[in-house]
Amino acid sequence: MNDKLQFEVTAINSGARARAGRVTTSHGSFDTPAFMPVGTQGTVKALTQQMLEDAGASIILGNTYHLYLRPGYPTINQLGGLHRFISWERPILTDSGGFQVFSLNELRKLSEEGVAFQSHIDGSAHFLSPEKSMDIQAGLGSDIVMAFDECTPFPASREEALASLELTNRWARRSRQRLAELHENSAAAEAVGISIVNKTQALFGIIQGSTFLELREQSLAELVDIGFDGYAIGGLSVGEEKRSMFEVVSHIAPMMPEARPRYLMGVGTPEDIVEAVALGVDMFDCVMPTRNARNGQLFTSRGKLNIKNSRYKDDAQPIDDACRCAVCARYSRAYVRHLYMSGEILGSVLSSLHNVSFYLDMMKSMRQSIVLGTFIEFRDSFLSGLARGQD
Amino acid sequence: MNDKLQFEVTAINSGARARAGRVTTSHGSFDTPAFMPVGTQGTVKALTQQMLEDAGASIILGNTYHLYLRPGYPTINQLGGLHRFISWERPILTDSGGFQVFSLNELRKLSEEGVAFQSHIDGSAHFLSPEKSMDIQAGLGSDIVMAFDECTPFPASREEALASLELTNRWARRSRQRLAELHENSAAAEAVGISIVNKTQALFGIIQGSTFLELREQSLAELVDIGFDGYAIGGLSVGEEKRSMFEVVSHIAPMMPEARPRYLMGVGTPEDIVEAVALGVDMFDCVMPTRNARNGQLFTSRGKLNIKNSRYKDDAQPIDDACRCAVCARYSRAYVRHLYMSGEILGSVLSSLHNVSFYLDMMKSMRQSIVLGTFIEFRDSFLSGLARGQD
Repeated sequence: MNDKLQFEVTAINSGARARAGRVTTSHGSFDTPAFMPVGTQGTVKALTQQMLEDAGASIILGNTYHLYLRPGYPTINQLGGLHRFISWERPILTDSGGFQVFSLNELRKLSEEGVAFQSHIDGSAHFLSPEKSMDIQAGLGSDIVMAFDECTPFPASREEALASLELTNRWARRSRQRLAELHENSAAAEAVGISIVNKTQALFGIIQGSTFLELREQSLAELVDIGFDGYAIGGLSVGEEKRSMFEVVSHIAPMMPEARPRYLMGVGTPEDIVEAVALGVDMFDCVMPTRNARNGQLFTSRGKLNIKNSRYKDDAQPIDDACRCAVCARYSRAYVRHLYMSGEILGSVLSSLHNVSFYLDMMKSMRQSIVLGTFIEFRDSFLSGLARGQD
Repeated sequence: MNDKLQFEVTAINSGARARAGRVTTSHGSFDTPAFMPVGTQGTVKALTQQMLEDAGASIILGNTYHLYLRPGYPTINQLGGLHRFISWERPILTDSGGFQVFSLNELRKLSEEGVAFQSHIDGSAHFLSPEKSMDIQAGLGSDIVMAFDECTPFPASREEALASLELTNRWARRSRQRLAELHENSAAAEAVGISIVNKTQALFGIIQGSTFLELREQSLAELVDIGFDGYAIGGLSVGEEKRSMFEVVSHIAPMMPEARPRYLMGVGTPEDIVEAVALGVDMFDCVMPTRNARNGQLFTSRGKLNIKNSRYKDDAQPIDDACRCAVCARYSRAYVRHLYMSGEILGSVLSSLHNVSFYLDMMKSMRQSIVLGTFIEFRDSFLSGLARGQD
């Protein structure tokens, strides 16, 4: 690849495989290990872009599937791309659309060419393929594009998992070819009605293979052979046991190219992220901080706190007295609980802001501890704090 | 009254009765004419306190009825009062609860003593009286307390309107007596389970009399006889014609004590507010900017804009290019429309922030024009801008 993205490892922790680094894109840099808040429909739910910037989000994720259906990539492309459309000048990663096609659509039809599916909004018929996913992501102009993959269902037999990863790898090759074509040949982009708003889009390949370690190795080897700017571990956090997930991550992460960012997709709890960082993973995304916030579940340094609990009715303390976020600086548990119980929008806003800040602060603490060589101590102390349990 | 509130008129426009001034409370000052965003349940819907401060809100309104039912005034009082509970250190006005009892409850029972009603949340039985309303508002510790009134239903016969205003005035006297008792006698507060968190609460009386001008005069005269820190025109914007409303306001506003703030309750559209300022009104509140925002209706200097309209799908312009709010500085109509159509919380947040900012900026422009002696020119130009109509 032609340096669509620079990745520099700045520190590796001696006791663990944890590493700190910096990824540079055409929309600036972000430090790793990084957590990417999920901006499904062009918005990290309930938060303004200003809040995200102030909380320290240096990269966010957009969902190709959702933005394709609404407002549509030609609209976003015509308005200058996703960065301009949502007014976010820092890096954006877009997923391939594959995961949502598989998780939101019962009536999909898979073929070598791609996936036919019906919109979950209005039932209209659509078709996604590696080429189409690249067209959309090129139209959006994200800084990191994900190859179109089949997220292998769980559980899967070895045979099924093998067939699935082989399909994913053929699609990865087609993804790479199509994205290069779009970038290098303006007529190709014109032909599908878009203009190229970001010529320096990096492309990540996605490792599949379910819980079969040798299939994970095979998937990775083939992807490395094709060559990507970064590599992601997909098909986890889809129903398998935690033990299986970490068996895969601990096996495959150390085999992933050292000079490229390693991204564990869709993970996870604070505990999961800390453990995966210890295994050498650099990037994460998850809807958990925002989704749980809207359900009244708040993350704290002493474990999860359910703000619906009546014990917080008169509680003048901040959500987490160890937290330095804008919510904890100003509001009490009693107020946030009142907002939640009253169904007020501000309850979702403040809860989401706190949870996203908690995740981002956790990543920052990890990065600092890796640089200082104290990651193991941070991990042990952080995890024992979480385990105290507040719910 | 003992100077619970200072009011200074700083400029009176020569061509109209419009006046600019400053009200000072124990939580600081606000300039008039002032618009008070409505914080029904201890939150101006969808906005953070930081957003309100940045948008220039210098006083907000809290609803006694809603806060009484949830989370309850003993809870708020115990946590230090409404200012501390919601983290808002600028002035707060609380209404008396009367309006909501009448508008949200079919099953209310009115007597000389007060009003029995059922909670709109869980059907539980409650009783509000002038004394109870003062107990609640003292517990909340707002800077401006409203006397407990009966909002005369519309339409009303002359007889009904007379009986209603006389009841309201007897309740006004009882309100004044009770609030003084609570402030002067700590045992009285203790006896109802509250502590006095704000000793310098001002009390406003509410003029009723429906659309009968001589009844409005009678109501005002009796209230002035009792003596209040400010006077409000109630019982308007409840279904009467616009013409009737302005007949009442233009008749009664000039008769209201010059040395006290004049407050027109529950009004209204930008046009209504500008006209009422021209008649000498100083204070306003209305749910319109926030409620309409959540329904996709945005205020602009060229009239209302319905963001649902498909014509805005690809519109890269800000909501109002003459607006200096944080939303117009950053986001396009196309993005706000996308958020609205996708049911995203951020759509409500940005729309509410824009609309509230529009109202606050309009008040600021009016204040400046009054001080400069150009209010008539401002009014004519502003109203003709609105009339261009964008919807």
